Amino acid sequence: MVQVDETTQGVLNQISEGFEQKGAYNLRQNGIPLCHGDSEHIKIRKKEDKPGIDILIDGETKGEKVFIPVVVSVSGMTDLVYNDFYVADGADVTIVAGCGIHNGGCNDSRHDGIHTFHVGKNANVRYEEKHYGEGNGTGQRILNPVTNIEIGENSVFTLDTVQIKGVDSTIRTTNVVMDANSKLFVLERLMTDGDQKAESDIEVCMNGSGSSAQIISRSVGKGNSSQVFHPKAVGKNKCHAHIQCDSIIMDHAQVGSIPEIQAKHVDAAIIHEAAIGRINDEQLLKLRTLGMTEAEAENVIIENFLS
Amino acid sequence: MVQVDETTQGVLNQISEGFEQKGAYNLRQNGIPLCHGDSEHIKIRKKEDKPGIDILIDGETKGEKVFIPVVVSVSGMTDLVYNDFYVADGADVTIVAGCGIHNGGCNDSRHDGIHTFHVGKNANVRYEEKHYGEGNGTGQRILNPVTNIEIGENSVFTLDTVQIKGVDSTIRTTNVVMDANSKLFVLERLMTDGDQKAESDIEVCMNGSGSSAQIISRSVGKGNSSQVFHPKAVGKNKCHAHIQCDSIIMDHAQVGSIPEIQAKHVDAAIIHEAAIGRINDEQLLKLRTLGMTEAEAENVIIENFLS
Repeated sequence: MVQVDETTQGVLNQISEGFEQKGAYNLRQNGIPLCHGDSEHIKIRKKEDKPGIDILIDGETKGEKVFIPVVVSVSGMTDLVYNDFYVADGADVTIVAGCGIHNGGCNDSRHDGIHTFHVGKNANVRYEEKHYGEGNGTGQRILNPVTNIEIGENSVFTLDTVQIKGVDSTIRTTNVVMDANSKLFVLERLMTDGDQKAESDIEVCMNGSGSSAQIISRSVGKGNSSQVFHPKAVGKNKCHAHIQCDSIIMDHAQVGSIPEIQAKHVDAAIIHEAAIGRINDEQLLKLRTLGMTEAEAENVIIENFLS
Repeated sequence: MVQVDETTQGVLNQISEGFEQKGAYNLRQNGIPLCHGDSEHIKIRKKEDKPGIDILIDGETKGEKVFIPVVVSVSGMTDLVYNDFYVADGADVTIVAGCGIHNGGCNDSRHDGIHTFHVGKNANVRYEEKHYGEGNGTGQRILNPVTNIEIGENSVFTLDTVQIKGVDSTIRTTNVVMDANSKLFVLERLMTDGDQKAESDIEVCMNGSGSSAQIISRSVGKGNSSQVFHPKAVGKNKCHAHIQCDSIIMDHAQVGSIPEIQAKHVDAAIIHEAAIGRINDEQLLKLRTLGMTEAEAENVIIENFLS
């Protein structure tokens, strides 16, 4: 087993709960694949032409988890990585892809993970992504993930993404193309504080007949932070989609939501709901009568909202 | 009383119900002010520097209607007009501004009405706008209205706009700036058929504390027509807004909805809802069991949806 330093282990505890160096996994540290393992059904191959790995998940995979955490702990580093997931027909897999930056210096640290999913038929993929920043350096902690997903016939893809805290700047780009009778579930949770900036662009093309998408985005903006959400659902066939964006705005934060729904087929049914507002006063009052301070009550409400 | 020709009268019947040549009114025909009248409290003045009129509504105006219909019946004409409304503090007025194009020729006919409302304090303004096209010429019937509205303190502005039928191309631009405790109600109804194209951009800036906006947009897309809605609500102060866009899609029509909500103040509460879908099957079935044909049943549902 490869020994990891204390800083890296601390970040791993935040982004990759349950991670161990066994089964199928790949730990990337400061732009270098530190260690990896295969399992019977999941093989990880280093790319020859560019940084990154191919993750080959065979059709016999049933309920297995693969961990691919990334840690950047050197100030001033830009880490660009391409990870491709090949999910065979019938596979059932959970991919845990946390990314954390520890920046103790004065230069910006940045990680851009370009993840592409090629999902076959009748598969079930759960993709969990935790983003986290820490360290008391003045350099920025920047995460710009790009996630491309092709969902094959009758497959289900769940994208569960959380930005816990400490990320100064993020631009999240997610593109999904859906085949017949495929299902997409997206749960996005995001909190910003201080002068942090976050942008999330999600485009879902429902090309296949019978495809359906549900996107739920929940965010909290504190301090002077700003957030922009731009989810887009395009229905080109018989399909249905439901997009819901809820944001809590606090302090001097600014939150914008620009959803886009495009129906290009008579049997495309697309619904969008968005709400931006301050913390619920009644909930706040109720918790304060239970003896909490205002700050404690706010934290409980926020945690509940984002959970 | 000025005699109007049969074509113009036919268009007037569609766009300006209840219009007579008395009280305060202005009838514009083919780019020329054909006739106008003043009332005790409402004066209409021809602009000296550009085409159009100033409508001066004094603070004693109580429940009065002013009609300013526009008819274009010459094929190949582009009519550009600037109408400015000065609504004094405390006025209560309804403005009926229909616009119809009869195009019997092969050249495009177009009317661009640039309407600007300067609304004082404690006023109540209802602005009704009907757009309509007819005529069996091959030339397009194009309407590109621009509506700029400044709503003063404690004033209420209601914008009721309908595009009945026959408009080949429209780009509607509406800009609203709201002062403290002002209220805005927008009801937009739009139907397109054939190869018609419609775009509606509404931007509402809630600058004043206590301002509130409600925007309801309902549309039906038939044939090969296409529609795009882009309502935008920006909250820069304590305010609340509710935007609701519902569209029925039929045949090979395409409908897009891109609402934008921007909260730039902790006490800005903004909600958006949008839905695009086909006609309700249950309603259709119910009406058909009452003996209606499918087409009759569809018409009843559409009329009800847009009313």
